[in-house]
Amino acid sequence: MTVAFQGERGAFSEEAAYRLLGRRIRVLPCETFAAAFASVAAGKARYCLVPIENTLAGSVYENFDHLLENNLHIVGEVNLRIVHNLIAFPETTLKNLRRVYSHPVALAQCERFFARHPRVEKIPAYDTAGSVKLLASQRSPGAAAIASQTAAAVYGARILARHLEDHRENYTRFLLLSKTPRVSPRANKVSIVFSTRNIPGALFKCLSVFALRDIDLTKMESRPLRGRPWEYFFYLDFAGHVKEQRCRKALDHLAEVTNFLRVLGCYERAR
Amino acid sequence: MTVAFQGERGAFSEEAAYRLLGRRIRVLPCETFAAAFASVAAGKARYCLVPIENTLAGSVYENFDHLLENNLHIVGEVNLRIVHNLIAFPETTLKNLRRVYSHPVALAQCERFFARHPRVEKIPAYDTAGSVKLLASQRSPGAAAIASQTAAAVYGARILARHLEDHRENYTRFLLLSKTPRVSPRANKVSIVFSTRNIPGALFKCLSVFALRDIDLTKMESRPLRGRPWEYFFYLDFAGHVKEQRCRKALDHLAEVTNFLRVLGCYERAR
Repeated sequence: MTVAFQGERGAFSEEAAYRLLGRRIRVLPCETFAAAFASVAAGKARYCLVPIENTLAGSVYENFDHLLENNLHIVGEVNLRIVHNLIAFPETTLKNLRRVYSHPVALAQCERFFARHPRVEKIPAYDTAGSVKLLASQRSPGAAAIASQTAAAVYGARILARHLEDHRENYTRFLLLSKTPRVSPRANKVSIVFSTRNIPGALFKCLSVFALRDIDLTKMESRPLRGRPWEYFFYLDFAGHVKEQRCRKALDHLAEVTNFLRVLGCYERAR
Repeated sequence: MTVAFQGERGAFSEEAAYRLLGRRIRVLPCETFAAAFASVAAGKARYCLVPIENTLAGSVYENFDHLLENNLHIVGEVNLRIVHNLIAFPETTLKNLRRVYSHPVALAQCERFFARHPRVEKIPAYDTAGSVKLLASQRSPGAAAIASQTAAAVYGARILARHLEDHRENYTRFLLLSKTPRVSPRANKVSIVFSTRNIPGALFKCLSVFALRDIDLTKMESRPLRGRPWEYFFYLDFAGHVKEQRCRKALDHLAEVTNFLRVLGCYERAR
């Protein structure tokens, strides 16, 4: 079973894939999110696993757009605690450390470490795990990377320090996407996307179909509707199963007050 | 009157500032959005003008976070039609064109141009206007930039082609921010930020305070609440004036069902 993800080997997405599906999967690193989605559509991978939101940085907005543009189905999710490690090869120690490479979001999440080490330069790179790969090829003294434990293992590097992140409450939620829909009887969460009709109180009416049936919303996101300035697509997650009667009724009701509605998936909620 | 903005001289933010405030302002280019906000807090500029959403790319999420963290007040807004121009110095013509520099978002909004010119390389730069500045310093044949008309004028460059953007419906909305609150009697739009109480149907209850009073919502955005995973701040814009009775009642009512609420500003809606 092949699982595609964006980033180099050792990316947080790879850690999340093992967490959700076990160690016996084959992984397919892709350069971009678009390529990860496309590899599933083309049948090169059975699934792709993409980050959708981080509890500090917010939504991965690009992936909401890909969810709409590609006809893939959400079949699972997993939350991963993000632990940033300082990773280097033997030529670099905490003493001679001068440069730290990582993705800009990861660098920004470790500001306290850089405040304590003012002579250490932050160098933005395209990827967390890719920064460790870069070190492996350059082997330059004084250089380290911030990345996952898996990245250190993949490239045979050492962890000089753990938990560089400023906030411990740092989680990323990933979605597992498949070309074929599959709804487990244990599924208890539904993701949808819709656009409202241009009527007063439109969004309120949309949310009322859930509130009137005591259905809990867990997340809402909006993205612009291209070609119709100041109109939006809304992405909504709610607790329930598409075959449950109150959820079916809520979706029927929602169809009355929207001009576009698609169910993106029904899947088991991450613990 | 000094107005700060992010970017180099000639940025779209500078065009938007002239549009909103006329040509007689002094401008203060800043390297980052954080610096633009800080310059107003420190009294170095009377106002800053920052982009908050684009009709194709979506919200400028970082600036929602800055709105919350800084105690500035929204005192105006302006919508600017984004026209991407191909800009160069005389050593570059459409014939010898080989490289085009611009901000990644601008490059992505001109894909049809690059499809028609497959030998032209896209080179990401930190800024649209900054790319024209770069050309001015390098004067390298075959190099051009994608930026605003103002950028061409500021650096004395030529416009080789206009309207490179794929979608004409490309607008950016900018907010004018001030250290001191100021509410004009002509104001007809209010921006607020709140976090919901952890009760079932919380967001629905928040929106009901507007729907029950026939108050139109124009935009809603959510951002993560740091330190409280899977909880969110909601940013809401609605039509009205803070001194209007139904708006005051709605805000009082909203305070009952939220655990945090702040009015970010009351200002005249952009045409």
